[in-house]
Amino acid sequence: MTCYPGFLCGCRCAASRAAALHSLLKYQTAAAASPLLAGLLVPGGLQRRLITCSRLSPAESLLPPLAAGFAPQRLLQQESSGSPGPGPSALGQQSSSGFALSRLDQRRGRSAGSEGLPCGGGFRPTRVVVVAKTTRYEFEQQRYRYAGLSEEDLKQLLALKGSNYGGLLERHYIHTKNVEHVVDSLRNEQIEVRLVKRREYDEDTVRWADAVISAGGDGTMLLAASKVFDRFKPVIGVNTDPERSEGHLCLPVRYTHSFPEALQKFYRGEFRWQWRQRIRIYLEGTGINPTPVDLHEQQLSQEQHSRAHVNGRFHDQRSEVSGPHLLPVRALNEVFIGESLSSRVNYKSCKPSFKFSLHRASYYEVSVDDGPWEKQKSSGLNVCTGTGSKAWSYNINKVATQAVEEILKIAKKHESLNLPLSRELIQKVTNEYNDSLLYSPEEPKMFFSIREPIANRVFSSSLQRGFFSKVCVRSRCWDACMVVDGGTSFEFNDGAIASILINTEDALLTVLLEE
Amino acid sequence: MTCYPGFLCGCRCAASRAAALHSLLKYQTAAAASPLLAGLLVPGGLQRRLITCSRLSPAESLLPPLAAGFAPQRLLQQESSGSPGPGPSALGQQSSSGFALSRLDQRRGRSAGSEGLPCGGGFRPTRVVVVAKTTRYEFEQQRYRYAGLSEEDLKQLLALKGSNYGGLLERHYIHTKNVEHVVDSLRNEQIEVRLVKRREYDEDTVRWADAVISAGGDGTMLLAASKVFDRFKPVIGVNTDPERSEGHLCLPVRYTHSFPEALQKFYRGEFRWQWRQRIRIYLEGTGINPTPVDLHEQQLSQEQHSRAHVNGRFHDQRSEVSGPHLLPVRALNEVFIGESLSSRVNYKSCKPSFKFSLHRASYYEVSVDDGPWEKQKSSGLNVCTGTGSKAWSYNINKVATQAVEEILKIAKKHESLNLPLSRELIQKVTNEYNDSLLYSPEEPKMFFSIREPIANRVFSSSLQRGFFSKVCVRSRCWDACMVVDGGTSFEFNDGAIASILINTEDALLTVLLEE
Repeated sequence: MTCYPGFLCGCRCAASRAAALHSLLKYQTAAAASPLLAGLLVPGGLQRRLITCSRLSPAESLLPPLAAGFAPQRLLQQESSGSPGPGPSALGQQSSSGFALSRLDQRRGRSAGSEGLPCGGGFRPTRVVVVAKTTRYEFEQQRYRYAGLSEEDLKQLLALKGSNYGGLLERHYIHTKNVEHVVDSLRNEQIEVRLVKRREYDEDTVRWADAVISAGGDGTMLLAASKVFDRFKPVIGVNTDPERSEGHLCLPVRYTHSFPEALQKFYRGEFRWQWRQRIRIYLEGTGINPTPVDLHEQQLSQEQHSRAHVNGRFHDQRSEVSGPHLLPVRALNEVFIGESLSSRVNYKSCKPSFKFSLHRASYYEVSVDDGPWEKQKSSGLNVCTGTGSKAWSYNINKVATQAVEEILKIAKKHESLNLPLSRELIQKVTNEYNDSLLYSPEEPKMFFSIREPIANRVFSSSLQRGFFSKVCVRSRCWDACMVVDGGTSFEFNDGAIASILINTEDALLTVLLEE
Repeated sequence: MTCYPGFLCGCRCAASRAAALHSLLKYQTAAAASPLLAGLLVPGGLQRRLITCSRLSPAESLLPPLAAGFAPQRLLQQESSGSPGPGPSALGQQSSSGFALSRLDQRRGRSAGSEGLPCGGGFRPTRVVVVAKTTRYEFEQQRYRYAGLSEEDLKQLLALKGSNYGGLLERHYIHTKNVEHVVDSLRNEQIEVRLVKRREYDEDTVRWADAVISAGGDGTMLLAASKVFDRFKPVIGVNTDPERSEGHLCLPVRYTHSFPEALQKFYRGEFRWQWRQRIRIYLEGTGINPTPVDLHEQQLSQEQHSRAHVNGRFHDQRSEVSGPHLLPVRALNEVFIGESLSSRVNYKSCKPSFKFSLHRASYYEVSVDDGPWEKQKSSGLNVCTGTGSKAWSYNINKVATQAVEEILKIAKKHESLNLPLSRELIQKVTNEYNDSLLYSPEEPKMFFSIREPIANRVFSSSLQRGFFSKVCVRSRCWDACMVVDGGTSFEFNDGAIASILINTEDALLTVLLEE
């Protein structure tokens, strides 16, 4: 596992460290004050690309208060006091984290990190919320019950799948066992724990906790992160089914079975803080509706949904909402824009869906880094963070060795090159190309890509992908939406304009543990 | 426009021509009897790849009777009689077409085609059904009415989009004008015409007509073709909005405004017949439901749909349906398989949709040309025809010049090649690679591709794309479906196995006119 220098531990001197803390309040200041820090914050010296988001809107009040104004000050206090910080409850500070940095203070000499040793501020939470994923077994249970089948029917129905039913239950038990292990480990340390499922996980629960632990895979981690706006409240992922789930965003799998060890490392500061940059979105123009739609909504019937939706939009347009509205979400992985019906598998759509809708691609205009607008037609577009560069965006953009081999063969033929097309070369080229699509979660830049671009007599586009600081999209769609981390959706129809960018104040605090 | 030799006009002699006609009854026989014909039928000499589908099932009776047993015989009669054939009504033949081949007979000497002159059997339909697309204006009208808004509300709502409302109406009028032109041209020739919209277009209407004309874009052509199972009933596409629609499957755009000219060419046989191969699907295993779901279904509410669906599946499984069932559809473009919820924009899903569902990719096992099964995880898979190779499949698989440039740069660096990376070379390589993804609609082979394949610690796959005669897919999905030409969907969940292949008896008869 590669470790990136964290804001709080990777700095070389007290001065730049103070600057680092300060930077948490005002990034630009810190970047100016400490070039080294700027380097740490923005690998590849991308300062010139950074955007300040001075635009504010009423919608911003939708966000829970950030601890920014409070935490760094408190961190410095704790540092000088040299004693473990009391839990936030004791301080009556609701939206802060129970960091104890004293050990970091003592270890500073050794924390230079130049020896590549792990280091960091000791971290001892007092109240933790554990967000557990819904297993497939639970999912099937609920959907069939929802469809009016009895538990007995469900058993028979799943039993017909033979071994798969067994597998289904097995995965469920493995997950459940691992969640219990995490919860027990926390309670053994006298840490207050709230174990919640998706529906019980809300802002109050987040406010109550010092730290959030997601127990599931990357999907659960995204869910857990989606409600955390306090950049000093760490979100930690535990992969509860390592055999089946990749868990890019989770702790190394060994801690799934030895979570107490992870806790001890948190206490001793034997870890690195990592701020994962997140994307924010401003929406403006006509036909916009800044109200998020939870993709996990289950109760709404087609007609209700459709009416609520259209009337909502109608109302908004009557009152000529123009924005810019800062949307009340932050994307940890990606923002995807596309026609709701452009998915040809959306056969359960709740909307009137005519043939041409099902076949309709997404039409929009794009401007990157304040450049000219360009017309696009495609199966959608994806704007991701460094974190998301390993996720969907990677699968959209990576090339197969098969394609690389054919491309090199063609080039070889055209230039009658003496190019030995060995397996090794093809693999090396493929890997290098695909690796170039990945970048650090801490870099405040975005990777933009058009999904399955359509170029024809009517449409043609030059821009297909690249790293940018700002992406603006003007919708020419008729039934489109903008989906954040696959979990929250916003209408995005003709007349609406989205400004997509990264503000370092939105970063999510996570931890890195060594394997 | 490239013209492919048609079954009825491209042959070099009476003998092979007779064989061609015979071949319409039994392809394999003809192929054996006439190597030349086999060449014509299977460019690239792919005979060895052809599959015989001897498997039949009750579901096959779902198909309208094919004219196979009748038409060729009749064509031969007409040929010898040398007189224009009477309309099928006169003959009381319901599922045939009103071909008149006499002119072809007289022209046979000149129809050698070796001079590259267009040729073909004269074609004079007596009853034509015109299938008109639903314009966006009509679509918006219906969806808002559906959502309980008045026409007045709709006007205000769309008016807010400013110029776009105007554009919307303009496109609607252009389409309507062009449809009228086609209908009038037909009636001026004393041809009986039925003008229908999606919902009035059914098997009876198809049976009534000698020929089907789709008035819209490629989507409308797919809809029109979806109900035609008589391989002697031509389906002809007219592009009613050439400025906005590509219309790969339609006549050259000039005939949109001069349809009478097209009719005269049909009469004189100045065109080529083209049989576009189509894909058939056999479904077997547990958890299958051979009942198609029309993606344009509007009335079903979430709960109804969900119940109908699940209970249907439950019932099927109870009665242990095992297949193989030949599904009652044929794919002109493609068959797509994927999780219903794998679209991250499906925020109007009618099903309980949990986070992990939204993030869930599709899991399945694939075997091509009866090879070993291979596990796959991806955003779905696409199996297309030569016709479909220019459609969605092309957008999934084509590479961007940008990618080709980077790949060549990397290779150049690794091999320290003296490779001048000129714009020309990069464009040439890109075009040649992308062109290799296209093939003739007449070739009885399929192009298979994995969409956004996911390779990780848990999953890895070697097979990503290629030309095959047979693709078998075993579902490991939990809420997946198989979508044919974006218009018809079938459940495709864990336990179900699909055999996807081409049978030349399913080919769709279309015409090729010169620009």
